[in-house]
Amino acid sequence: MANWFSRRSRRIEVPKLGSRGEELVTTKLELDEFTPDLLSYLGRAAYVQLTLFENLSRAISTAPSTADKAALGPAAEHSIARHRALADEIVRAGSTVAEAMEPFTRPVDAFERSTRGGDWFETVMTCYLSAGFLDDFFERLASGLPADAAKRIQAIYADRRADEALLTAELQSAIDDNPRLASRLAMWGRRMLGDTMLVARSALQFTDNHKSDEARVEPVFTELVAAHTRRMDALGLTA
Amino acid sequence: MANWFSRRSRRIEVPKLGSRGEELVTTKLELDEFTPDLLSYLGRAAYVQLTLFENLSRAISTAPSTADKAALGPAAEHSIARHRALADEIVRAGSTVAEAMEPFTRPVDAFERSTRGGDWFETVMTCYLSAGFLDDFFERLASGLPADAAKRIQAIYADRRADEALLTAELQSAIDDNPRLASRLAMWGRRMLGDTMLVARSALQFTDNHKSDEARVEPVFTELVAAHTRRMDALGLTA
Repeated sequence: MANWFSRRSRRIEVPKLGSRGEELVTTKLELDEFTPDLLSYLGRAAYVQLTLFENLSRAISTAPSTADKAALGPAAEHSIARHRALADEIVRAGSTVAEAMEPFTRPVDAFERSTRGGDWFETVMTCYLSAGFLDDFFERLASGLPADAAKRIQAIYADRRADEALLTAELQSAIDDNPRLASRLAMWGRRMLGDTMLVARSALQFTDNHKSDEARVEPVFTELVAAHTRRMDALGLTA
Repeated sequence: MANWFSRRSRRIEVPKLGSRGEELVTTKLELDEFTPDLLSYLGRAAYVQLTLFENLSRAISTAPSTADKAALGPAAEHSIARHRALADEIVRAGSTVAEAMEPFTRPVDAFERSTRGGDWFETVMTCYLSAGFLDDFFERLASGLPADAAKRIQAIYADRRADEALLTAELQSAIDDNPRLASRLAMWGRRMLGDTMLVARSALQFTDNHKSDEARVEPVFTELVAAHTRRMDALGLTA
């Protein structure tokens, strides 16, 4: 705890704005100084979100039962709504959605391919873990944006708990039906973490002092990975 | 016109409820007497809508450009929201979404397979034409449901014009870029109409007097096909 606060005080050069005062009472580490410009942030976040949505809709299309199809609907609806809200912010910031997203399609498409999974269960696992990690990440990264945009964008990422619970329930019932799935999904969850972290890291705008940047970014990623571990734990899997 | 009214007066045995009075000033033919029970209606309509959504999300995943991906987002969002609203009505009517949809999955899945299209352009054409036809159809069929449910369900199908315009624009720009697409898409539009009509017809609850039923259903389908023809016309294609 003491260590976190000392890191934090070293990092923050600009006093916090009053409107974000609620953050001060938590111990959440921030990425403010590595946040790119607004349109780069939005273009990448919007394209990542579209990919998370595409993963969910593929999981709906290939679901083994009507009940599974029905269960995943709300998560897909919220994900595409989140994408649209980010798209609205792009237009508000004076660009078009396609133009803003274009520079980020190649790396995110590569991420999508490598985390697609070999079957429906791995696809749902990817939906659960990559959305968890990346939505957490972009929510945090938004705090370095101009205050009014930051506030609106963080609201876009709020209220994800019900969707996460829904995906946990889907995966848990699959594991209960077939306990042998557990070790395969645990392995998959560990494997796709690396690719997910890379997508997040590539969104950070580093300075020339990489060594110092790494040291300051590392504790935030430690927290994001801890949340990933908790998502694995929730299914009884070892991360 | 005169002919429509005479058919109409023959058909309607029960006086219209005041709350739906606005229908009386139009010449819209109705399917009231062929509307199935509420849960059958909802289960089928919800599964059809989920399929329309899956078609749209496949079109997003396989879009040839980031601009096409971005353009289709709102249509997918509205379709999954429509599905969820129908799902909410299923729960309200005392069933579960999966149970209510289950009886209709086989024929609708067969429809989905036969109208999938051979490439992205045919898929988008299917999204445009089958959503147009089937949403029109289920909106009309709802008028035979109990008045309060009918009103809520017809509201779910309202405001589809912007999404239709969006799909028209996508297809129009594809045809402008490659005029040879026109004849292929015209053929595809004619071909998938039959399968789409079958899905609609199978939702009707016929009496024992099939011949008389056919005669009464036919003018409604004539109108639905006329709307299909207008959708083809909007792209400069002959239906």
